[in-house]
Amino acid sequence: MEKYNLLVGQSGGPTAVINCSLYGVIKEAMESEAIDKVYGMINGIEGFLRGEIMDLGEFFSDPDKLELLKQTPAAFLGSCRYKLPPIDETDVYEDMFEKFADYNIGAFLYIGGNDSMDTAGKLSAYAKRHGSDIKFLGVPKTIDNDLVGTDHTPGYGSAAKYIASTIRDIAIDAGTYDLKSVTIVEIMGRHAGWLCAASALARNEHVKNPMLIYLPETPFSMDKFVENVKDALKTERNVVVCVSEGIRDSEHRLICEYKGKADIDNFGHKKLTGAAKLLEAEIMDKIPGVKCRAIEFSLIQRSSSVLASGRDKEEAEAVGRFAVKSAVAGESHQMVCMERAECDGYKINYVLKEVADIGNKEKMIPSWWITKDGTDVTDEFIEYVKPLIEGESEIIYEAGMPKYVYRD
Amino acid sequence: MEKYNLLVGQSGGPTAVINCSLYGVIKEAMESEAIDKVYGMINGIEGFLRGEIMDLGEFFSDPDKLELLKQTPAAFLGSCRYKLPPIDETDVYEDMFEKFADYNIGAFLYIGGNDSMDTAGKLSAYAKRHGSDIKFLGVPKTIDNDLVGTDHTPGYGSAAKYIASTIRDIAIDAGTYDLKSVTIVEIMGRHAGWLCAASALARNEHVKNPMLIYLPETPFSMDKFVENVKDALKTERNVVVCVSEGIRDSEHRLICEYKGKADIDNFGHKKLTGAAKLLEAEIMDKIPGVKCRAIEFSLIQRSSSVLASGRDKEEAEAVGRFAVKSAVAGESHQMVCMERAECDGYKINYVLKEVADIGNKEKMIPSWWITKDGTDVTDEFIEYVKPLIEGESEIIYEAGMPKYVYRD
Repeated sequence: MEKYNLLVGQSGGPTAVINCSLYGVIKEAMESEAIDKVYGMINGIEGFLRGEIMDLGEFFSDPDKLELLKQTPAAFLGSCRYKLPPIDETDVYEDMFEKFADYNIGAFLYIGGNDSMDTAGKLSAYAKRHGSDIKFLGVPKTIDNDLVGTDHTPGYGSAAKYIASTIRDIAIDAGTYDLKSVTIVEIMGRHAGWLCAASALARNEHVKNPMLIYLPETPFSMDKFVENVKDALKTERNVVVCVSEGIRDSEHRLICEYKGKADIDNFGHKKLTGAAKLLEAEIMDKIPGVKCRAIEFSLIQRSSSVLASGRDKEEAEAVGRFAVKSAVAGESHQMVCMERAECDGYKINYVLKEVADIGNKEKMIPSWWITKDGTDVTDEFIEYVKPLIEGESEIIYEAGMPKYVYRD
Repeated sequence: MEKYNLLVGQSGGPTAVINCSLYGVIKEAMESEAIDKVYGMINGIEGFLRGEIMDLGEFFSDPDKLELLKQTPAAFLGSCRYKLPPIDETDVYEDMFEKFADYNIGAFLYIGGNDSMDTAGKLSAYAKRHGSDIKFLGVPKTIDNDLVGTDHTPGYGSAAKYIASTIRDIAIDAGTYDLKSVTIVEIMGRHAGWLCAASALARNEHVKNPMLIYLPETPFSMDKFVENVKDALKTERNVVVCVSEGIRDSEHRLICEYKGKADIDNFGHKKLTGAAKLLEAEIMDKIPGVKCRAIEFSLIQRSSSVLASGRDKEEAEAVGRFAVKSAVAGESHQMVCMERAECDGYKINYVLKEVADIGNKEKMIPSWWITKDGTDVTDEFIEYVKPLIEGESEIIYEAGMPKYVYRD
C-alpha cells in the first residue's frame, strides 16, 4: 500500500486542550503504517490556501518537545474564521484540491467547533461530488459544548473546571469582609449556557455561591433579576451571580445590547461585551448600600493550562487519535463523537457521525436541566458535568511558569 | 514561666498566601513552650472588639486540616479595614486591652499591609504609654509589594506569578488569528506598579509581549500611549499592553477618572475601575481596523491557589513563624522584614524593624528600574522579581478542584 500524507488544521476559538487533540493526531499518525508525513496548516484553511503549512513530524522529532504540546494553550497551528462558499462556487475548492494533490494529502483532519464542521462538511461534499478519495474527518473542539451528536466536546471540561474553581475562589474572597456584597461574573456563551451552568460546581457544603445562575436558554428579566438578588441577600451576606454573556430578554434582545453597539464577525456572530457591567449598574441603582462588582472572565477561561481537566486532556487526545485511525480505516465525511456509556461510573465510547449533520447547529442545555424559575441548574446537570472536570495532570514548569512549545 | 495566649488576626485585602502566614503562626505557637492557646480574631480587630474570636488550636487539632490552610485562598479569619483612632482617644483602646486581659493575651500578631501596620503601631504605642507588656508584632502581607523596610512582601510573588503566567497565556491566545490586535490588561496597583511590572516576566525568546507596560510611577499621556501602540504594531502583529489601575497623568489625575466617578473607602483610598476600558475606547477611535480588547484581572490575581509561588508560600509561612519566635523572645513594636542576602543565588534573612516606621508608607518602584520612556522595566527589576515566582507546591484536589478549609 502506498503511503499518503495527512493534513491537520485547527479552527475557531482556542481551548485549553485543543493542542492535546493535535498531539493525539501527530502521535497516532507517526505510529501509523499508512501515513508518511503529518502536515499542519498554519491558520487553518485560510493559511493553507496561501500555501502556509509545516511538517509536524519533523518539527516534533524530539519527543520531549511533543510532550510540551499537551500543556501549551491556544491553537498551536494558529486558527481562522474563514467560511467556505457553497460548493457550487468551485474556484476556491479547485485551488484547495490542487494543493491537496501537490502535497499528496490522503486525509484531512479539522479540529474545531460548529463552524469548522461546516468547513469539513463542505470539503467532504465537494470531494464526494468530484470523486476525490481524500478522507475528511472532523475532530470536535469547543469550550462552548454546543456541538450536537456528542455527549460533550473536548475543551468544555477544562473551561468548566476553571470556571467552577475560580468562582469558588471569588466566592471565598467576597466573604473576606464583614459586609454585604454582590459579585456578578460574566462567563462566555453566546447562545448556549453550558459554561455558565458549570459555575454550579463551585458549591459545596460551605460555599453556597453562586446563588444565582442566568443562562441564555431562559428569557432574562431585569426586574426579576433585582428581586432575585434582594431575596438572595436575605440568606447570604455575599451573593455571587453568574451570567452568560448571551443572556437575552423575552423579546430575544441581548441584555448587553441595552446600551452600546455590537460588532458582527465573519460568521455573523455578534461580538458581545458588558452584560455584567450593565447588571452591576442596575444593582447599584436599585439596591443602594450593597457593594457590587462586575468581573468578566474573558479569554482566561479558555487558556488556563494549570486548571485544565485531566480527563478532558485525555479525551482530547483520544478524539485526535480516533480520527486518524478512522481515516486510515477508510472512513470519511464524519466527526468523532463521544457517547457516554450507560454503566456504573463514567465511560466514553468514541464513534463517528456524519459531519454534515453537525456543522452550523447548536446544542442548548435541555430545559429539564434548568430550574423552573430560570435561576439555577438541576442535580441532573450536576451529575452530567461533574465527571468532566475530574483529574489533574502534571505540569512541566520552567523558571516558575508552565513551559510551552512555540511554532516560531 | 507562666504560659500566655497568642492572638492573631488578618487585615486588609487577601493574598494567595496570607493563610500560609497564619499556618506558620499556628504551627510555631503550637510548638512553643511559652504559649498556651492560639486565638484568631474573626474579621480583624473590628470583629475582636465585638468579641468574635476562635480557638485555632482546637479548630486545627487535626493536622491534615491544618495542611489545607496553606492552599486556601482569601483570609481564613476574615478581614477588616477598620482604622484605629489616634491613641489619645482612649475609649476603644481601653475596651481592647480589657479584652486582651480577659483572654490572657500575651502576644498580638497582625498579618497585613500598611494599614494593618498602622493598627499594630498604634496598639503598640498605646501599650508603651500605658505600661502593658503585651507583645505587638506585624506580619507583612500584600500583593501590592508596597511595604517599606522589606525586600518584598509575602503575597507579591504569587500574584506576580499569576500575572506573568496569565499574560503569557493571553499573548499566545491573542496570536491565534492572523490579524492585528491590541489587548489591554488592567492589573491591580493604586499607587505602586509592582504587580503590573511583573507582567514583564511573561516574555521569553518566543513571546515578545507585553510590548508596553505603564505604571503609576510614570506620568501617563494618552497621546504618547497611542503613538507607542502604533509603533509596537509595526513590529508585532498582536500587541499586549499592561497598565496599572492607578496610572495617572502629569497633573496626577487618574486616567480611570477621565470619565465616571470614583468612590472612597474607609482609608481614603479611591476605588478604581476602568482604565483599560478607557484605553480600549481610545485605541478603537485612533487606530481603526485593529481588533482591541480590554481585560481586567480583578480579584482573581490575588486568589489563585494553583498558581501560587512555592517560594512565596514558604516565605509567608516563615514570616509567621518568625513573628511568634520574636514575640516569645520578648520582642515587640516590630514588623518582620525580609532582607535579601548579598550572595550567589537567592537567600532571605528575616529581621525585625520598628512597625511605627512602616505603617502608612508606600514603597514605589525606584525610577532606575523603569525605562526612560516610561513604557517598560529594566533588567535589574527582572533580576529582582524573577526568584519570587519560582517553585510550585503540591495542591490537594477533591472532585477536580483544590480542597480548602472553611471556618464555618
